[in-house]
Amino acid sequence: MTDFPSNWGRWGDTDERGAVNLITDEVRARGAAEARTGQTVSLARLTTPFPLTGGPFAPTTASTTAVQTVMIHAGPGVPAMAEVMIVTTHHPEVTHLDAMGHWAEGGRVYPGVDAAASSGAEGVRHGAADVYAGGILTRGVLLDLAPGGRLDPGHPVTGADLDAAADRAGVTVLPGDALVVRGGWDRVADGAQPLPGMTLDAVRWMHEHGVAVYAGDIGDARPPLPGEVPGALHRFALGRLAIPLIDGADPDELAATCARLGRWTFQFVVAAPRIAGTTGLPVNPLAIF
Amino acid sequence: MTDFPSNWGRWGDTDERGAVNLITDEVRARGAAEARTGQTVSLARLTTPFPLTGGPFAPTTASTTAVQTVMIHAGPGVPAMAEVMIVTTHHPEVTHLDAMGHWAEGGRVYPGVDAAASSGAEGVRHGAADVYAGGILTRGVLLDLAPGGRLDPGHPVTGADLDAAADRAGVTVLPGDALVVRGGWDRVADGAQPLPGMTLDAVRWMHEHGVAVYAGDIGDARPPLPGEVPGALHRFALGRLAIPLIDGADPDELAATCARLGRWTFQFVVAAPRIAGTTGLPVNPLAIF
Amino acid sequence: MTDFPSNWGRWGDTDERGAVNLITDEVRARGAAEARTGQTVSLARLTTPFPLTGGPFAPTTASTTAVQTVMIHAGPGVPAMAEVMIVTTHHPEVTHLDAMGHWAEGGRVYPGVDAAASSGAEGVRHGAADVYAGGILTRGVLLDLAPGGRLDPGHPVTGADLDAAADRAGVTVLPGDALVVRGGWDRVADGAQPLPGMTLDAVRWMHEHGVAVYAGDIGDARPPLPGEVPGALHRFALGRLAIPLIDGADPDELAATCARLGRWTFQFVVAAPRIAGTTGLPVNPLAIF
Amino acid sequence: MTDFPSNWGRWGDTDERGAVNLITDEVRARGAAEARTGQTVSLARLTTPFPLTGGPFAPTTASTTAVQTVMIHAGPGVPAMAEVMIVTTHHPEVTHLDAMGHWAEGGRVYPGVDAAASSGAEGVRHGAADVYAGGILTRGVLLDLAPGGRLDPGHPVTGADLDAAADRAGVTVLPGDALVVRGGWDRVADGAQPLPGMTLDAVRWMHEHGVAVYAGDIGDARPPLPGEVPGALHRFALGRLAIPLIDGADPDELAATCARLGRWTFQFVVAAPRIAGTTGLPVNPLAIF
Repeated sequence: MTDFPSNWGRWGDTDERGAVNLITDEVRARGAAEARTGQTVSLARLTTPFPLTGGPFAPTTASTTAVQTVMIHAGPGVPAMAEVMIVTTHHPEVTHLDAMGHWAEGGRVYPGVDAAASSGAEGVRHGAADVYAGGILTRGVLLDLAPGGRLDPGHPVTGADLDAAADRAGVTVLPGDALVVRGGWDRVADGAQPLPGMTLDAVRWMHEHGVAVYAGDIGDARPPLPGEVPGALHRFALGRLAIPLIDGADPDELAATCARLGRWTFQFVVAAPRIAGTTGLPVNPLAIF
Repeated sequence: MTDFPSNWGRWGDTDERGAVNLITDEVRARGAAEARTGQTVSLARLTTPFPLTGGPFAPTTASTTAVQTVMIHAGPGVPAMAEVMIVTTHHPEVTHLDAMGHWAEGGRVYPGVDAAASSGAEGVRHGAADVYAGGILTRGVLLDLAPGGRLDPGHPVTGADLDAAADRAGVTVLPGDALVVRGGWDRVADGAQPLPGMTLDAVRWMHEHGVAVYAGDIGDARPPLPGEVPGALHRFALGRLAIPLIDGADPDELAATCARLGRWTFQFVVAAPRIAGTTGLPVNPLAIF
Repeated sequence: MTDFPSNWGRWGDTDERGAVNLITDEVRARGAAEARTGQTVSLARLTTPFPLTGGPFAPTTASTTAVQTVMIHAGPGVPAMAEVMIVTTHHPEVTHLDAMGHWAEGGRVYPGVDAAASSGAEGVRHGAADVYAGGILTRGVLLDLAPGGRLDPGHPVTGADLDAAADRAGVTVLPGDALVVRGGWDRVADGAQPLPGMTLDAVRWMHEHGVAVYAGDIGDARPPLPGEVPGALHRFALGRLAIPLIDGADPDELAATCARLGRWTFQFVVAAPRIAGTTGLPVNPLAIF
Repeated sequence: MTDFPSNWGRWGDTDERGAVNLITDEVRARGAAEARTGQTVSLARLTTPFPLTGGPFAPTTASTTAVQTVMIHAGPGVPAMAEVMIVTTHHPEVTHLDAMGHWAEGGRVYPGVDAAASSGAEGVRHGAADVYAGGILTRGVLLDLAPGGRLDPGHPVTGADLDAAADRAGVTVLPGDALVVRGGWDRVADGAQPLPGMTLDAVRWMHEHGVAVYAGDIGDARPPLPGEVPGALHRFALGRLAIPLIDGADPDELAATCARLGRWTFQFVVAAPRIAGTTGLPVNPLAIF
């Protein structure tokens, strides 16, 4: 893979934002201009928390899940109701952002920080998700790889697939755009079948088009694609190209909206809870029309 | 308080969105039109998680906090780093949204659901935060009550204070707007002093102006304001007027931006992680210019 | 139930130990004398923790359980391995002690403390499990209700059943003894069938014999026994007679040992982790021969 | 340290119990014979849980601690009160047992298992604490190094110190005994001062006397002792000699009882909650007289 492009060093030796640096003032204004009616569409899956507790004093649950909650007993007469949540961020059931600190390729985190230095027991020191706490706003483009249906099981998504979807929609992905990909698969509901996944060729396409952030229902294939580099999206798009990933997005409602409006671009906004020092955070990205 | 206005029943007997219903298509388009350069400013505090664990294998911590994390030991050779987070949503350290299900005024949750029916051990059944999962977008207006400084300790914020700030900024709060209030106080850092707080008069002002959502660094006073109804914001704005509250917002950077740009309105967007069945969720509201 | 005996007030108005007060110095010495070879048999179920986390960085789990763990990532080069445990004490999968503070019968905790006063958001103020932190030691007696087999589904356990088992074993339960009952059922593994359970008659028997602490695989029936007071063991043995319950014990190995040795009495010792202010704690009671 | 004795292989290549194997039937009967009056003394610290939650619906806490709890809101009318506990086992505030799987000396867990094989994200596979779930019973001997007071700060505890204490008490530590050591220090309360600690010489003494299990308020010194091997107790007593450690014991009440009774030996019993697959567990060891 020595010939595969890398963004390590492109924005300096201490950068933590990666490809989000491609969102220049001009790019950002292009994104803002997409907001007209203000209609918002969420790109997030609905995550249903399961009770943390089991046994007679709580409902029985079927599986450990991304989010678990306990309703707090605050005592009689308190008008406020509240809960504690336990969140396993990097879980396929919850739409979440993978920051640079989530991935150490060859033992090093973008743009070359030793994994042992990038995080410790107390959390992430380099490349935490809160580097994006001010919000990411840019133009978003939806590429629907299987309008009205879904990709074949185990389909290897290539640059040609992305080109074909762009052609169908009549759009061009420009440097600094947020790329939203729909393949019609759900890692949780469909997880018993071979999942489609991104190939290294598709990741190279993202690099050539200057993708600033990726969101989609297509991630790395499971099982790995025959003859392909395994984990291409995490290893190369995140680890080498420093494109933050929005894992486990659900673009179905977006695809329906785009088709109805005949518009495949929109203002893309994402702002995770402003929590410091984590490898990732649950997010609810919005497409604004 | 029988003469205090109430929105119970205004949008039906089963409504869960409350004053967010004031955001009509026209209002939303007015909000969208505020986005020009696409510059984003976060209204969220930065919450620093504390380690869940103590003792020799984790850093020592100074206090229990809104968010606690544990870095997961995934075994040798795993390139991904991840953590579990425990989140106490209704905590002053974390900017969070209070949904209808958070508050039972007189034992009933807006618009009149018995508290025992609205939530149980497994979570919230009526008025959960995920009713806003599609995102809230509208025009936001900042009213800075103490430009460049802060309110006096224990100051009772009234409608007149809000009017004065609107006059200074040359803005008018319109029905469906998101009201953002800055008083220059921090419930956590300044918590040893008497905190300013909203009076019932200010809540009535919000009703008269048709505020759809509230965000601010001013909440209910602590200790309660002499001669005022205690807990006016939670009891009346949330409990009776059904205005979702964004508690613990930090509008300092926003105020600086507004002053620099000479603009006190903006596109306001908030989208909490799409987690079902909770009384509230951590959020990162954005002001977009 | 007004004629049912009660121990409220028997040991004063502020007592927290209940029937454990029946263990006098003489009773205790009788228990100590049972230890001869020092062979120990555990009365606890083996609880297998499930990972707190799900998703790709942790094993997938089948159900929420009594105990969940996360292995802590302490950083490279640390020779110690450690975990965090989340324990749902009152869960059928874990053998645990129910202290007085676990139960409010008619809104009051033994010996008459208002439930709102006995515990709050910060924990238990009256009747916490740590009142037994110095250890409970007395003579234990096993009554095996179904030697080599198990009771019929939904069997209502009565005083006559207990007498019959005592006769078979040639033992007499004396005041201050720990009563260990085996019915051959497992609330978790057998939970799809109607479970046998204690009747009020059996609880009255415990009172007449001066049982100081109860441990067994028979608790309250599920579904409730036809024609019987539901929840007799928790409501009357714990709530009224103040007999601490060791819920979810597993006396199978004990029964096999007793049968092999021809001894149905032993030194009974239980000492929960010394954690303050809880309604109950996981325990591992020992029978010592 | 190549000349330091090791028990690796002494009880086979797959053993998980280590020096507890020294407790033969004869040793165990010697322990049982110590129980006369049945008086029990706990060797555990009282651990006060802190609320997991912060903010307005829970008490404010001063520090993250060994145990955190949330009272569960089970809904109105439920007579049972319950909580969830989060336990950080290897924390100085809680008396806990260190099993073999807690320590990898030179990357290997007793008796030579590769650390990566001994545990994983799902828990401990070799040398978990539940190998002692049947209970450990043997004779216990208290060596009080500073009767009525405490050791000097930073005191290096040697074999000569242990001999002197045994002489004062007129006892001899025999193979298979549980060694309980009191130095009068508290790692939590006294942690601002240099703590006394075990030297390699003292660990060698334990080996020569055949100590089966260690409990004490003296652990490894903090800061490390000048001129001594750092971490001698964990690295050599636990890691090489396979003596399970009961960390953070509190033998003060025991010392007072021994002095009053003029007896320095007792029946020692410990049985942790029967939870599978952990590196350690909170325990409440008892001395029975």
